[in-house]
Amino acid sequence: MRLTTLRTPDGTRAARVEGGTAVELNAPDVGALLAHPGWRVLAAARGGAEHDLATAASAPVVPRPGKIVCVGLNYRNHIAEMGRELPEHPTLFAKFPEALIGPADPIALDPASHAVDWEAELAVVIGARVRRAGESEAAAAIAGFAALNDVTMRDWQYRTPQWLQGKTFEGTTPFGPALVTPDELPGGVRPSLTLSATVDGEKVQESTTADLVFDPVTLVRYLSTILTLNPGDVIATGTPGGVGHARTPRRYLTEGSVLVTEVEGIGRLTNTARAA
Amino acid sequence: MRLTTLRTPDGTRAARVEGGTAVELNAPDVGALLAHPGWRVLAAARGGAEHDLATAASAPVVPRPGKIVCVGLNYRNHIAEMGRELPEHPTLFAKFPEALIGPADPIALDPASHAVDWEAELAVVIGARVRRAGESEAAAAIAGFAALNDVTMRDWQYRTPQWLQGKTFEGTTPFGPALVTPDELPGGVRPSLTLSATVDGEKVQESTTADLVFDPVTLVRYLSTILTLNPGDVIATGTPGGVGHARTPRRYLTEGSVLVTEVEGIGRLTNTARAA
Repeated sequence: MRLTTLRTPDGTRAARVEGGTAVELNAPDVGALLAHPGWRVLAAARGGAEHDLATAASAPVVPRPGKIVCVGLNYRNHIAEMGRELPEHPTLFAKFPEALIGPADPIALDPASHAVDWEAELAVVIGARVRRAGESEAAAAIAGFAALNDVTMRDWQYRTPQWLQGKTFEGTTPFGPALVTPDELPGGVRPSLTLSATVDGEKVQESTTADLVFDPVTLVRYLSTILTLNPGDVIATGTPGGVGHARTPRRYLTEGSVLVTEVEGIGRLTNTARAA
Repeated sequence: MRLTTLRTPDGTRAARVEGGTAVELNAPDVGALLAHPGWRVLAAARGGAEHDLATAASAPVVPRPGKIVCVGLNYRNHIAEMGRELPEHPTLFAKFPEALIGPADPIALDPASHAVDWEAELAVVIGARVRRAGESEAAAAIAGFAALNDVTMRDWQYRTPQWLQGKTFEGTTPFGPALVTPDELPGGVRPSLTLSATVDGEKVQESTTADLVFDPVTLVRYLSTILTLNPGDVIATGTPGGVGHARTPRRYLTEGSVLVTEVEGIGRLTNTARAA
């Protein structure tokens, strides 16, 4: 099943994707849908109004997650590129929901940053409340996956030892275009998918989610040791090699740059950088 | 004005503190109250049921902030204790709302951590929506102040370069007992208050909020450059010297430890560490 959050004249609306059509569901967005314990039944139910996906406007697939936890240094090739050793524990940091934008929204270039970089990622969306989850409970708590680009202000990320301020600029993080349930993906809750980022037509990142050091189930287990995960919470699983900051010379997004983020089997985010 | 969030048999309820009495207001908690643009009028209005504060149960003063931003290394004496230089920019990291507990709740000792430390802090609570705020707008966006203890699992904090995972264990961060508006405090929006932490009767931290490198107004301005601050958002402004991890030998909270966090003019949090 594929779920998305549409923007309609009456606000956002959860929808089921059927081919090129989005069928409205009885929830204001995918996050609200997932909050129903019986969301799989609701999501499969007979829908309402239908929209052509080619012309429909989409919001971030979960517009206001209760938590967005990001993982750093989680692709073997990106760890090598950054000159680090394979970690024993996942590196975790946060992003606030204000950072999220829809799959076709502009990326807000803030005049305060001059080093806006890309990080294509697979995002895990939680579909059940879990704490101290075992293997099977963690797997069952994964509602599905989406694409996310953890667009990062590198100058702000490295102002201090903690990355948060470079990771949560408003209106910078594309997230969507749909939540795809694990049964639709090769590898299921540990999906094996090609993901990539393209800037102005040039492919800058390409890897496979099979290269993750900490896979989605492991991340859900680890996080649920720390605190309760709730429906709609998001885990951005980290980015592979190829970020602009690690290139020689360094390369960043500037006015008009078109960033395409794609995860095989999930879909594509196309976002143009624009002065905020 | 002093505002608090009570626990009642019907759920939480915002209340105004008048001496030893809490007077119920027409909002489920202080966060919901602050979301009304006219919250100062609502908060001053004739109240409902009255409760004796000596026996009333209190929730975290804002139970579910949209954002909790914590500041590291913000007291001159704590920076010296950690062996660092005065920073040019504030070090920012996040905490998720699941970490919060009320002013008399137990601190959850998780079996996964063996280094549970204290960090007494002054917390800023936002009372208006602001983005790219100037000086006066930032000052006006501060609803008031509360006490918070950024209880930290040091072993988890230092597992990786990013502190989040040691900072957001569920049920570990006392927050309250009341939001006190700036007009009630010496120094107003840049309050000059003694804050302290006491463990089992021994004073382990004592400093003044006048020692902050980045004061509350500066922090609101800085953060609002990055993203919108909304009513109910919380900024934990950092802790002074005296944390257990910096002592020789190191000292941590264990079963039954009583942690008292006090900010002059705001109040006291008394929390006992208990196995989760």
